[in-house]
Amino acid sequence: MHQQNPVFIPGPTNMPEVLRKASDMPTIDHRSPMFGEILRPGLAGVKKVLKSEAASIFVFPATGTGGWETAITNTLSPGDRVLAARNGMFSHRWIDMCQRHGLNVEIILASWGSGAPADRYEEILAADKAHEIKAVLVTHNETATGVRSDIAAVRRAIDAARHPAMLFVDGVSSIASMDFRMDEWGVDIAVTGSQKGFMLPAGLAITAFSPKALAALETAKLPRTFFDVRDMSKSYENNAYPYTPAVGLLNGLKVSTEILLAEGLENVFARHKRIASGVRAAVRAWGLELCATSEDLYSDTVSAIRTPEGFDATSVVTHAAKKYDVAFGVGLGEVAGKVFRIGHLGSLTDVMALLGIATAEMVMADLGLAIKLGSGVAAAQEFYRSSHVPAGQGAA
Amino acid sequence: MHQQNPVFIPGPTNMPEVLRKASDMPTIDHRSPMFGEILRPGLAGVKKVLKSEAASIFVFPATGTGGWETAITNTLSPGDRVLAARNGMFSHRWIDMCQRHGLNVEIILASWGSGAPADRYEEILAADKAHEIKAVLVTHNETATGVRSDIAAVRRAIDAARHPAMLFVDGVSSIASMDFRMDEWGVDIAVTGSQKGFMLPAGLAITAFSPKALAALETAKLPRTFFDVRDMSKSYENNAYPYTPAVGLLNGLKVSTEILLAEGLENVFARHKRIASGVRAAVRAWGLELCATSEDLYSDTVSAIRTPEGFDATSVVTHAAKKYDVAFGVGLGEVAGKVFRIGHLGSLTDVMALLGIATAEMVMADLGLAIKLGSGVAAAQEFYRSSHVPAGQGAA
Amino acid sequence: MHQQNPVFIPGPTNMPEVLRKASDMPTIDHRSPMFGEILRPGLAGVKKVLKSEAASIFVFPATGTGGWETAITNTLSPGDRVLAARNGMFSHRWIDMCQRHGLNVEIILASWGSGAPADRYEEILAADKAHEIKAVLVTHNETATGVRSDIAAVRRAIDAARHPAMLFVDGVSSIASMDFRMDEWGVDIAVTGSQKGFMLPAGLAITAFSPKALAALETAKLPRTFFDVRDMSKSYENNAYPYTPAVGLLNGLKVSTEILLAEGLENVFARHKRIASGVRAAVRAWGLELCATSEDLYSDTVSAIRTPEGFDATSVVTHAAKKYDVAFGVGLGEVAGKVFRIGHLGSLTDVMALLGIATAEMVMADLGLAIKLGSGVAAAQEFYRSSHVPAGQGAA
Amino acid sequence: MHQQNPVFIPGPTNMPEVLRKASDMPTIDHRSPMFGEILRPGLAGVKKVLKSEAASIFVFPATGTGGWETAITNTLSPGDRVLAARNGMFSHRWIDMCQRHGLNVEIILASWGSGAPADRYEEILAADKAHEIKAVLVTHNETATGVRSDIAAVRRAIDAARHPAMLFVDGVSSIASMDFRMDEWGVDIAVTGSQKGFMLPAGLAITAFSPKALAALETAKLPRTFFDVRDMSKSYENNAYPYTPAVGLLNGLKVSTEILLAEGLENVFARHKRIASGVRAAVRAWGLELCATSEDLYSDTVSAIRTPEGFDATSVVTHAAKKYDVAFGVGLGEVAGKVFRIGHLGSLTDVMALLGIATAEMVMADLGLAIKLGSGVAAAQEFYRSSHVPAGQGAA
Repeated sequence: MHQQNPVFIPGPTNMPEVLRKASDMPTIDHRSPMFGEILRPGLAGVKKVLKSEAASIFVFPATGTGGWETAITNTLSPGDRVLAARNGMFSHRWIDMCQRHGLNVEIILASWGSGAPADRYEEILAADKAHEIKAVLVTHNETATGVRSDIAAVRRAIDAARHPAMLFVDGVSSIASMDFRMDEWGVDIAVTGSQKGFMLPAGLAITAFSPKALAALETAKLPRTFFDVRDMSKSYENNAYPYTPAVGLLNGLKVSTEILLAEGLENVFARHKRIASGVRAAVRAWGLELCATSEDLYSDTVSAIRTPEGFDATSVVTHAAKKYDVAFGVGLGEVAGKVFRIGHLGSLTDVMALLGIATAEMVMADLGLAIKLGSGVAAAQEFYRSSHVPAGQGAA
Repeated sequence: MHQQNPVFIPGPTNMPEVLRKASDMPTIDHRSPMFGEILRPGLAGVKKVLKSEAASIFVFPATGTGGWETAITNTLSPGDRVLAARNGMFSHRWIDMCQRHGLNVEIILASWGSGAPADRYEEILAADKAHEIKAVLVTHNETATGVRSDIAAVRRAIDAARHPAMLFVDGVSSIASMDFRMDEWGVDIAVTGSQKGFMLPAGLAITAFSPKALAALETAKLPRTFFDVRDMSKSYENNAYPYTPAVGLLNGLKVSTEILLAEGLENVFARHKRIASGVRAAVRAWGLELCATSEDLYSDTVSAIRTPEGFDATSVVTHAAKKYDVAFGVGLGEVAGKVFRIGHLGSLTDVMALLGIATAEMVMADLGLAIKLGSGVAAAQEFYRSSHVPAGQGAA
Repeated sequence: MHQQNPVFIPGPTNMPEVLRKASDMPTIDHRSPMFGEILRPGLAGVKKVLKSEAASIFVFPATGTGGWETAITNTLSPGDRVLAARNGMFSHRWIDMCQRHGLNVEIILASWGSGAPADRYEEILAADKAHEIKAVLVTHNETATGVRSDIAAVRRAIDAARHPAMLFVDGVSSIASMDFRMDEWGVDIAVTGSQKGFMLPAGLAITAFSPKALAALETAKLPRTFFDVRDMSKSYENNAYPYTPAVGLLNGLKVSTEILLAEGLENVFARHKRIASGVRAAVRAWGLELCATSEDLYSDTVSAIRTPEGFDATSVVTHAAKKYDVAFGVGLGEVAGKVFRIGHLGSLTDVMALLGIATAEMVMADLGLAIKLGSGVAAAQEFYRSSHVPAGQGAA
Repeated sequence: MHQQNPVFIPGPTNMPEVLRKASDMPTIDHRSPMFGEILRPGLAGVKKVLKSEAASIFVFPATGTGGWETAITNTLSPGDRVLAARNGMFSHRWIDMCQRHGLNVEIILASWGSGAPADRYEEILAADKAHEIKAVLVTHNETATGVRSDIAAVRRAIDAARHPAMLFVDGVSSIASMDFRMDEWGVDIAVTGSQKGFMLPAGLAITAFSPKALAALETAKLPRTFFDVRDMSKSYENNAYPYTPAVGLLNGLKVSTEILLAEGLENVFARHKRIASGVRAAVRAWGLELCATSEDLYSDTVSAIRTPEGFDATSVVTHAAKKYDVAFGVGLGEVAGKVFRIGHLGSLTDVMALLGIATAEMVMADLGLAIKLGSGVAAAQEFYRSSHVPAGQGAA
């Protein structure tokens, strides 16, 4: 039979019917006024999701990686110093990108499983009396380890060091699923993609620039054209793009923000937290541990689960796919083979989460781990039963 | 959030992506040769699914109820005697229809939970020396009680009584999910719909006529036009319909038979049996009983589960819908309030079944039944783990 | 390449994107409250489209032919007299259905190309002193000949004859495209389908019953079950169906009435008239004549165009399909080979109509008719240019 | 009413049903083997469309502009000299991109309406004895002017000059619609997008690298990460992407190449030529001229039509959109206000082209140009009638 089980990868997520339909559009003239009716509310919606009044939103036909490149190439110049913590595969990759674009990256090494260390940020920034560091990079949610870092704390660190550096945040796997406060946290650039909390197909790099970041456009010397924010900004004035926009996805983005805001952001975040809590209850019932080293770091969008020493965690993923047609995420980089990941973001219900948990149980039992069938499910059921579960509001 | 959980009603079933797309067609000219390329293979495919060489297939833009009406109005005349067992809501309704069309129905009352009693059929037919009984009606799978009757045994009963009556079988919730042998069982008319084993939206009444049933067209005096098989048959000769066909659904039917036959009918049946067996393992683990009174009667498409005396089984369904957004089936007629039903036919996987089981567990626990969370899931997991589970073959 | 040209058959029509998407729904539980949220507004919307306050709407999973059967079997008894004009293939078929159901049909023969003769209706009704005639049948728009009859005139005829017969109107190819006034015209049953003015796939028989027609349910003795209005009515009280409803199509119907009412019924009718007028201008420019014998009879949904003596009009249709992949309608019954039909109802624009006209021109020229290329197009262009054309209001 | 007319912009094109459905996929795990079954045949199909044995195909989630950036950043270093003709807006933009990335562009100014002048390329290359010019850029089809340049001639120019420069070709609006011979013409990098000849939504930058271009990856010093071909190439070895791929669009690309190759590339090209020829016949009948200055330059995918002196050509586009809901293309850059463009690429039929022509006629007449209604249509009809037109092969 054909693919019909939900996926439990940490993005792209399961897509609601209404967003698939919104994204699947017939061709329209993207230079006609119709396009503005799609673009404008989409951008405005993203801004609300980011809890920002001040930001300018720019959406590129690309992915989150393109969003990273947009952030650095539009605001920095070759040789510029940036400060970044490396605590997982995605923070690692952004650092690598910076280096490949000729930036001088001050790397804070942090263990995979820990958060971005605000104290270390503060120390280094305080020491940078010459204010050579132009930007501070933080990965809000490390998709590889299931760790959420404290962006507010990093902002406090920058402020405590009285440092003028801009704050760039990778919110790819957090935004629209977990609380994100662009203005309150003083984020200068936020980056995300369409295929996570917005529950759309991959294909949009979504970026938000603070006025300070916009000002940096004028001095930044890194070459860029496709990702040039000035071109994009100028085109937006005419409700247009500097090249052909991904109209269907943008329409999907518009509708996605509509349904997120209609549900209420806090409800969206609470839903993610509730579903994640059920998964974590299952992990505890299995006697396993998360990669995230403390509760305050637990991600509500993805759980990276450590398997016992000597066991190949990747086999969970391959076996689940092969035998049960269910997709989990493998461990990446330093935690490859040590963790498997359950993505629990986007369009998911409590009972869909139970499907994933039940599958993981069978898989681990099949592979010889001492997992009691039904144990994780029961723990999650207990949690879901007792937490409030609003039922669906009708067909999508 | 929007509807995204699978349904566990005994039809309409969950639909595979490929069938939704096949059914969602732009308008074509149904009088053009294109239509024949949809109709012909669809009819041929249905014939194969019925394991018939001899039958003629007629598909009406209606539902299974329309199929019943097609069966009786095309072959019988007012006042004709027919013999039928009443062992559930759907056999009851077919009998009611016969009566409303002026047929004289000999009703075999059977308890709801039992099958159609072949021995009683034989007795009555044997006693009908004058061969006044023109047709024998049997409901292959009583959707209301989750009971599969033995059609081969009814055929043997007819033969043992040396009675010329035609055998009409309601296979609405069995065909394309459980073994059905039109020719071997000597079925004269088989009736089903698009929304069960064929996994399509409701909207097609699918009927199969043996040569003997076709011969009866000439003498049948019950009025019919919309459901007239002669009109349909004549139009089919020109790859056309006597009125506007439901082209998209017919295209869906064509593709449905293609994917069923590609999977292999025996594999389809085995898959239904495996998934049903897991559900039944869960029911046993819960300490509950099926409405079906013995194992040989267990339906592989729907399980009607008896709840303890004094408990309103319907509350399981309403609570599941309201709190968890999961749809089960209520008890109907004589078993209303006494059973709830888990549909497990059509496009379903082992792990989707676990979702349904896990939900039912939470619901029953919520409602105060002494159900141990995870118990049914664990029993089903154990079964699914040890039975062969072929994984999906790619995206639909 | 694949089918991509619009169709010009007189239904099923081209479908707007929004209605295809509305009809293509995932499975929901049709016994859940969600279904009522689809059914209720759909029924209410149909009522408004019919300009009725008093009617009860019943929608069956069938086609317009099923709607005819619903009308007669729910209100009449075997042997009842009905009065009907036969002025085309569809009025012919409804008469045939009546006869097959044992009704005694008084047939007014009218030439194909003329309308239903109100004066003849009046004569016969006036002569029926015993009021044996129970129902008067009229085909509002003869799809076969492109003739619109004057229902108000038939109502006046009935009233002038002071006759209590019910008035049944086949509005299959008029309703939702041309003005229809259920209450004002005193229509007792109106019948239509989903695939014409409602621009949906075929699969719904849509009927409207006046209180008088509803009263007749109690005395009608024609057998019916699938099409029983009492069962349907009783189920509607619980927002349910007596059998499995075609949920997706009903959702399509809901949305269809929404978009029709949002456009404004008079705008919808004006749009059809404008597009039809352009087609008629082309026909005049070609030097051809319509089957409809006078201007007041011209249908705004379909034009049946007479080709010169000795020319096989059907060849226009086969050639257009084969060479240009464009579908027109053939002549039926008495006008087979004498006319071809251009359907211009439903989701169509002025410029789509020009496509159809341009195609017809090429086809006729290919087949040796003395048609000047561009002549019909120019006439239609001239008309469309000068009539008001509101442009699209955005992507569907 | 809603958007339903075909578009006549020079991309994104009208999309065949089958490609919309192929692109609208449920989420799959892009790290599972399923993804390779989409990626591999898609890449192989593109290679065949390019008539290449030697090329490596790399597809980025971006647009054609991203493809340009891929070409230059992966093969060149800051300060490198490149040679490019500027004969329209898109060649202008590629040159601008080169300059923004620090390349030293030798610009051959050519009039808008002329092709890339092979003789001038040869002169300059011959003069570059030091072989400082690393790459020669040519726009195969200038979408702004409807001009197709002779790539084979540019190749001959390079060879005649015995120059080792790489040949980069923008085939955005030519590839998959007009003949393109990667290997025979010695193209080193070809660039296109998904939304033109491949008839998909925008969102894929499709690039092809010759072995020589691949070799240049090792020495190129322009910074790149998102568009890094080495990362992409390395990931492809594992049927993966360096970041999240646009799975649905890639599946669309796979199916697009299947239907193009099934039709036969020469048939695809002939179809475009036939449809374009009809449009050009209409232009002649109107007494207007193309922007392209000679017949050998005529593009088969887009016609830029000069309007009379003093007339604002842009008004054609705005009026067509507003009054008739039909989208044409405006003139860009130097020819803004002087031309309007009819796109005739992708999923289009002869009769759809007639719709566009008929609309343009009405618009021009509305705006006071001395255009005889029907004149262009008649000229195109005459052409289409006499050229072979294979009809559709069934529903998409």
